[in-house]
Amino acid sequence: MNLRTEPNVAKHAEATDHNEISPFCPRFQYTLELIGRRWVGAILRTLMGAPRRFNEILGAIPGLSDRLLTERLRELETEGIVIRVVHSDRPVRVTYDLTCCGRSLEPVIRSVSEWAEVWVR
Amino acid sequence: MNLRTEPNVAKHAEATDHNEISPFCPRFQYTLELIGRRWVGAILRTLMGAPRRFNEILGAIPGLSDRLLTERLRELETEGIVIRVVHSDRPVRVTYDLTCCGRSLEPVIRSVSEWAEVWVR
Repeated sequence: MNLRTEPNVAKHAEATDHNEISPFCPRFQYTLELIGRRWVGAILRTLMGAPRRFNEILGAIPGLSDRLLTERLRELETEGIVIRVVHSDRPVRVTYDLTCCGRSLEPVIRSVSEWAEVWVR
Repeated sequence: MNLRTEPNVAKHAEATDHNEISPFCPRFQYTLELIGRRWVGAILRTLMGAPRRFNEILGAIPGLSDRLLTERLRELETEGIVIRVVHSDRPVRVTYDLTCCGRSLEPVIRSVSEWAEVWVR
C-alpha cells in the first residue's frame, strides 16, 4: 500500500458523508500506523507551521535524536508526505516541507490534539 | 502520562477554537503513539459499532493473532479506553466495549478514515 501523489477527488467528496464506521479498513490501518510511528506526529506538527531546516526540527522536539530524525524524514519523503527542498543559496540551504498530501493531514492532527487536550492528564 | 477517567470539560469547550498548531505537544504525541500502535486502530474501529466478544474481534481483523489481541486489549483496558464486561449469563459471557474515553475517539477515527480514503492507494 502507498500514498497517492494527487488526492482522489471523488473520495474527497464522499468523505463528507458520515457513514457507519466499518470494522476493518486496511487504508485506515495503514494511515494510523504510519502517522503513529514514534516521533512522526511531532515532526508533522513542527512542519505544519512552516518549512524547517533539519536542526530547527531537531531543536523543536525534545528527546528526538539526530539519527531518528534522519530516518523518519527519509520514510516520510518516501511516502510522499514530506519534501526535501534544496535552495540555491550560498551556502546551500536545505529545508523540509509538507507536500500537499502531508499538509492535508491537518484535520487529523487537529482532531488528535483536541482529544488529547480533553483526555490526557 | 495517562488518560483521565472523566473528560476535562474546560478543555472540551476550548477545543472548538481553531488555534495555531504548536510545534510540540507531549499529550498529542502520547495519544498518536497510543492509537498508532499496531492493530489498535482496527480494534477501536471494531468496537465503535458495538461491544464484541474476543472471538468476534479476532474474526473481524484479518491477520491479527490471538496473542496480540490479548496484549492490545489489556493495554487498552489499562489506559481506560476499553472495558471488559463479564455478563452473568450461563455460560459466562465476556465482551469488550469502549469506555466514554474510548468512544470519544470517534472523530479521530473519522478524520483518519477520511484522509485514508482520499490519499491511500
